[in-house]
Amino acid sequence: MKIQTPPGMRDFYPDDMRLQNWLFTHWRQVSLTHGFEEYEAPIFEFLDLYRLKSGDEIVSEVFSFEDRGGRNFAIRPEMTPSLARMVAARANALPRPIKWFSLPRMCRAERPQRGRLREFFQWNADVLGPEDALADAEVIAVVVAFLRAVGLGPDDVAVRVNHRRVAAAALQTLGVPADGVVAAFGLIDKIERMPADKFAAAWNDLPFASACGVDAVRGFLGEATLERCLDLAAQSGEDGAAQAEQFTQLWRQLEAFGVAGMCTFDLRIVRGLAYYTGSVFEAHPKQGGLRALCGGGRYDDLTGLLDGPRVPGVGFGMGDVPVLEFLRELDRLPSPERTLDAFVIDADADLFARALELVGHLRAAGLRVDFSYKRTGVGKQFKQATQRGARHAIVLGDELKDRNEVVIKDLVSGTQRTIDWDAFCADPKLD
Amino acid sequence: MKIQTPPGMRDFYPDDMRLQNWLFTHWRQVSLTHGFEEYEAPIFEFLDLYRLKSGDEIVSEVFSFEDRGGRNFAIRPEMTPSLARMVAARANALPRPIKWFSLPRMCRAERPQRGRLREFFQWNADVLGPEDALADAEVIAVVVAFLRAVGLGPDDVAVRVNHRRVAAAALQTLGVPADGVVAAFGLIDKIERMPADKFAAAWNDLPFASACGVDAVRGFLGEATLERCLDLAAQSGEDGAAQAEQFTQLWRQLEAFGVAGMCTFDLRIVRGLAYYTGSVFEAHPKQGGLRALCGGGRYDDLTGLLDGPRVPGVGFGMGDVPVLEFLRELDRLPSPERTLDAFVIDADADLFARALELVGHLRAAGLRVDFSYKRTGVGKQFKQATQRGARHAIVLGDELKDRNEVVIKDLVSGTQRTIDWDAFCADPKLD
Repeated sequence: MKIQTPPGMRDFYPDDMRLQNWLFTHWRQVSLTHGFEEYEAPIFEFLDLYRLKSGDEIVSEVFSFEDRGGRNFAIRPEMTPSLARMVAARANALPRPIKWFSLPRMCRAERPQRGRLREFFQWNADVLGPEDALADAEVIAVVVAFLRAVGLGPDDVAVRVNHRRVAAAALQTLGVPADGVVAAFGLIDKIERMPADKFAAAWNDLPFASACGVDAVRGFLGEATLERCLDLAAQSGEDGAAQAEQFTQLWRQLEAFGVAGMCTFDLRIVRGLAYYTGSVFEAHPKQGGLRALCGGGRYDDLTGLLDGPRVPGVGFGMGDVPVLEFLRELDRLPSPERTLDAFVIDADADLFARALELVGHLRAAGLRVDFSYKRTGVGKQFKQATQRGARHAIVLGDELKDRNEVVIKDLVSGTQRTIDWDAFCADPKLD
Repeated sequence: MKIQTPPGMRDFYPDDMRLQNWLFTHWRQVSLTHGFEEYEAPIFEFLDLYRLKSGDEIVSEVFSFEDRGGRNFAIRPEMTPSLARMVAARANALPRPIKWFSLPRMCRAERPQRGRLREFFQWNADVLGPEDALADAEVIAVVVAFLRAVGLGPDDVAVRVNHRRVAAAALQTLGVPADGVVAAFGLIDKIERMPADKFAAAWNDLPFASACGVDAVRGFLGEATLERCLDLAAQSGEDGAAQAEQFTQLWRQLEAFGVAGMCTFDLRIVRGLAYYTGSVFEAHPKQGGLRALCGGGRYDDLTGLLDGPRVPGVGFGMGDVPVLEFLRELDRLPSPERTLDAFVIDADADLFARALELVGHLRAAGLRVDFSYKRTGVGKQFKQATQRGARHAIVLGDELKDRNEVVIKDLVSGTQRTIDWDAFCADPKLD
């Protein structure tokens, strides 16, 4: 019976896995340099956890099941609910600021089709505790540091940053009523993916369209500078002024961290999710219709949903698929090769037991070492060494029989040297 | 609404995660030094994949669900079926030997109770392709290398090795008929967990108990040496002789690799699973009733189940839970601490923007760096540096204002030095 990979899922053969690990290593490395600590959570949670955050419509978007005890679970479609649950459970014990990251795999019940995966990995990094814009600046700095680490610069990607409450205050000066801001954001969030006439029609359907026409909004979104929006927000009242001040701080700190050059202010970035309460940001390829590489922002009451004390936070999620797709598009995807430190070759089948002994010594010393399973000629073994990406070949032959020496050949430079067996086993250094 | 961690699942807070990563790093490192390459597979597979390998009874042991297309899936309860599927799909294209490892998370629908987890991680390493006992020796060498790497020696653990076909031939000389061997193995597999009288009763229920009594079997299992079993197998016919020769080779190669000192021959290790066809092994704590740390063996037709060409293999699985439990029992579990390379301290709030600038430089250079979110006194910031496990504190104070210098204090030795700001930013070395 032939059984396929489930639709929308990926197998990672070693070639694919080296690439995944290349990505994971960068994600982890950037997180750690920025003082974040890794956490993990179960692959499935109570279905209610997702319902609580996203409402009943989430149920059709996740893979859910019932256990024999009648409990309902869902494979996680995102990490934030698990994060909120974990933080709420220990809110008072965890040292602040809580700077956590994770590289979870997760699943969504997409209809299987090209480009829509049911399983993916998503880097998450969050700072919980501080209300300070410093936390927002840090998570954006983490995104920029990753982009730079994989070779992406300001010509390739922009981290587009906005602030929902500053933007809300600015929109209100245009005539959008306070209770219409969420609806306006919902539409603005789609403006880049919607044909102009569809957007106009949808906007004109809004109850406040007569107070604030579609042309006014379009013009404003395209032209309003950061300074203008900060001014408008500052003038809108005490809270608006505080938000404007916070957003000003954020830009100042992005400058201080040396990452502002990759960031642009963009009023169109409002994020669809209602729980964002302050800064919002997305990293977008400069060219092409590719989707956002990551998105995030400030949320101020996620733990409250779980009866925990209020713990404000800011964070983002970045999927493996858009990042790898974008780098492939730019032809900048690395192709990490198979590598070994050494390949041990026996020039004489009599010496094979000695070869295995040496292999054991070298591996115990932490070197990546392999050898041929088949007793074949030296030439074939050298060929295998090259195929396996070995840096050195170590040959056991007449030198070993005659003088107790092994030959170490550097397969890149082509140079070779001999060394006494006992000295080498006692302290196996290849260079 | 309060929502708990699902029963039988674990949250990994940063303290727990550091320990998991300590284990994962050893698993990965040992695999790579032995020339194994990492792979991964989907978190869920078609339910039929598990049915095919384990029969219908598997269905009650897994978490399964149906998608909207009416397909049935199960969260993976083990990795071997995915491995077999992946290898069968590319059997002719993959370079041999196929030496693969993975660190998958997996789930089993256990009834939630203490010590029975529904989710765990299991290191898998397999060599596919060669029938040579060398492959068996390599996977056992990998197990031993891991045990040694985490500080376990021959006084703590034994890797108990047997060979199903050698053992079968030996049992047949005692009077067990050829078609009774599987039933005999099924019972022998439980001998250490069963009270003596229960074992005797169960053995006496076997149809061939009159030909081979329980005392004969018990005596044989306890006393038969490797040499005796090899002799018995060699005398049992051509196939038995070939198996005896292969098992002899295996021991010779374990010697050559330098791992035989951790291995013992043990006739009682037969493994419950029917698909093992040659060597079988388990790593057991020497003391206490703790369960096996890992188990594995040779299987010769796993890919055949999937209509693939026959690809013989040998491998093992090792769960994270028994290993961590055992190390905890021995009081040898490490407690990896929070660490940072440096903590940047501003002695004057005016210098905070400079502090962030330095933090940005150091992080970009690959150092793990953090700082205080709150502008507090130098003493408090030093305390935070220590709490965060920082190796160095870098202080920005009067030295920076007066002479453009920063102070670097080694928090372990207590020594400190000053260095020019520009020189340090250009080449941030802490030691």
